[in-house]
Amino acid sequence: MRKRLKNRIWPLWAFLCCAAPVLAQPPRGPLVVSPQVNADKTVTFRYLAPQAKEVRLSGQFLKAPVEMSKDAQGIWSVVTEPIKPDIYPYSFQVDGITVMDPANVAFFPNERFKASLVDVPGDSPLVHAMKNVPHGSINYEYYPSLEGTTGSLVVYTPPGYDQNPATKYPVFYLISGTTDTEETFFKVGKTNLILDNLIAEGKAKPMIIVMPYGNIAARVAEQKSGPKPADPTVRDGDDAVKRANDFATDLVSRVIPYVEKNYRTLANRENRAIGGFSRGGGQTLRTAFSNLDKFAWVCSYSSYLSPAEMDRNFPQIGGDAARTNTRLKLFWVSVGSDDFLYKGTVEFMDYLKAKKVNFKSLITDGGHTWMNVKKYVAETTPLLFR
Amino acid sequence: MRKRLKNRIWPLWAFLCCAAPVLAQPPRGPLVVSPQVNADKTVTFRYLAPQAKEVRLSGQFLKAPVEMSKDAQGIWSVVTEPIKPDIYPYSFQVDGITVMDPANVAFFPNERFKASLVDVPGDSPLVHAMKNVPHGSINYEYYPSLEGTTGSLVVYTPPGYDQNPATKYPVFYLISGTTDTEETFFKVGKTNLILDNLIAEGKAKPMIIVMPYGNIAARVAEQKSGPKPADPTVRDGDDAVKRANDFATDLVSRVIPYVEKNYRTLANRENRAIGGFSRGGGQTLRTAFSNLDKFAWVCSYSSYLSPAEMDRNFPQIGGDAARTNTRLKLFWVSVGSDDFLYKGTVEFMDYLKAKKVNFKSLITDGGHTWMNVKKYVAETTPLLFR
Repeated sequence: MRKRLKNRIWPLWAFLCCAAPVLAQPPRGPLVVSPQVNADKTVTFRYLAPQAKEVRLSGQFLKAPVEMSKDAQGIWSVVTEPIKPDIYPYSFQVDGITVMDPANVAFFPNERFKASLVDVPGDSPLVHAMKNVPHGSINYEYYPSLEGTTGSLVVYTPPGYDQNPATKYPVFYLISGTTDTEETFFKVGKTNLILDNLIAEGKAKPMIIVMPYGNIAARVAEQKSGPKPADPTVRDGDDAVKRANDFATDLVSRVIPYVEKNYRTLANRENRAIGGFSRGGGQTLRTAFSNLDKFAWVCSYSSYLSPAEMDRNFPQIGGDAARTNTRLKLFWVSVGSDDFLYKGTVEFMDYLKAKKVNFKSLITDGGHTWMNVKKYVAETTPLLFR
Repeated sequence: MRKRLKNRIWPLWAFLCCAAPVLAQPPRGPLVVSPQVNADKTVTFRYLAPQAKEVRLSGQFLKAPVEMSKDAQGIWSVVTEPIKPDIYPYSFQVDGITVMDPANVAFFPNERFKASLVDVPGDSPLVHAMKNVPHGSINYEYYPSLEGTTGSLVVYTPPGYDQNPATKYPVFYLISGTTDTEETFFKVGKTNLILDNLIAEGKAKPMIIVMPYGNIAARVAEQKSGPKPADPTVRDGDDAVKRANDFATDLVSRVIPYVEKNYRTLANRENRAIGGFSRGGGQTLRTAFSNLDKFAWVCSYSSYLSPAEMDRNFPQIGGDAARTNTRLKLFWVSVGSDDFLYKGTVEFMDYLKAKKVNFKSLITDGGHTWMNVKKYVAETTPLLFR
């Protein structure tokens, strides 16, 4: 390759890919196309690594990583079996090291792992498919958060928001999972496209969706005193308790006032919903049960609170089920049958039943994945604000 | 570690980081904080890889990659020398494989490499520093592009845009480099924060900034017929000529009409600017010189057109310099003295001088980097629409 290249005059643009040679991706060399979704729903994955000894494909459409094979150019590739249409996280295992797909710009925003995304389209469009319908807008916003820090939000405004300056909208506060970021419901959950499609079909009411960042305490600590260890996956101890409380405090006292000042919202409990996935589902339940005056619609995706925590921290929810049932216009609990939180979620449902607390539930196939999150968002948003 | 963990009851949240175990980042294990910017402007980088044989740090603040060393937990780390305050792309070289920093969510959107970003703050705030000033909003938009495809744009609206529904704004069309995406000027260039700061200081007029995707032909090909090789770094051949023309056609016939329909713009040439970096600078010059009826403000960052191409494709620019000088309210050319395009850019400047075409120029230190792009954006936006 190099020899051939040396023997020709370089065109200007051929150099412009060298903007970051120190990054040590091959600045020149064969163009790698990956992933390539084929008509038969198989997918070809490719990764350039002439020196690597073993490259494997790891993805949530696979039960286990699969070997890739190297061609004469040093491009490793594999063609998968036909994949059930959906969006899946994947990565390459290069001599045991986890690597995103350098050729793919679709990525999974997360604080602890890096993964790329592959979208296998359905024969009929999936809930998140890009269709020729009016599209809402995704807005990145900064807001004044706790202790004088600056927080960030991703906000979906529905189609027509800018064209109907007199219209006010209900708001769905939607919280991502542990180590996810405020971008994950947009970049992985495709919440904007799901709502664009549901609204175009008249199945969901036009609404604003606010996607906050979940680990407020860590962000405050970072802005106040530089990064410091605060493992978001460990719940024990004062730091973890502070994290849980800080999130609810920030959402109720900072995020909601910012959104209601800067967007045209219907600012009352009947027009406020809260939902979340995984840790965000726990934050949803805790924040809602502590603020029933502010939220009338509650969606827990792949999460639960233990009966012990319910009795200890939220006795009034089951203790006065009649009031709870009157206050909550929707109380939704869903989980996948393969989710490692399935058993706990079923116990939570049994607790609610025993207490005669009304809720809607959905048990799907699959596990603790964003494939399921998209399903749950598509199932629940049509029920909101009715 | 594992032993200790096995001997305790797992709290709910401790499990929730396992949402994507198949991604094979260690779902549990020590929390890795990276990058950690220290008070003395040194930066501590960390990467967890117990099995790796060699891990090196590669970054645009370094002349060459530096070795990292492994601790007992398997965390590789290095503390750098004090770094000149700026935002720099970096990555890890793990046994020769380029890896983003899994612990860092700040990333460089690009089609051919993956890099993380570290922001070393200045003693006095840098042009892009997050300050306590009114913030504009970043909007992700879809628009009807060529051949019935859907394009994506990132659009900055200035502070007060939503609060002043009667106000119309000038528009700066800003194009990123080869293999960059429509997100790069936002995520790497921090264009929104630069403008927030300049507008707050009264140094720049409130303006809308539209950041398109540069490789329209490839996107159209992908949506029409699935991914196919179309190396954006090779300029020869019909495919490359089509790419260059498609960009200008899409910008003028699709992007501008979409923006002027959906945003409150001052829709005339005196209120339209165009600028870009690297390939985007070339696209800027070609699009502007072909459409002087649409743009009065032109900024080329780290790019140029050859005298041969100027004479062949745009003879009127130099041939009727008086008219060119009347039409262009700003013609800006800047480049770094270490940029591999420096010589060509100087030849371009010499050509313009010889033809008596007026332009403002800036030669900075440094190379073909986004550190320089931020400087150029901060230098030029105050000059626009005056």
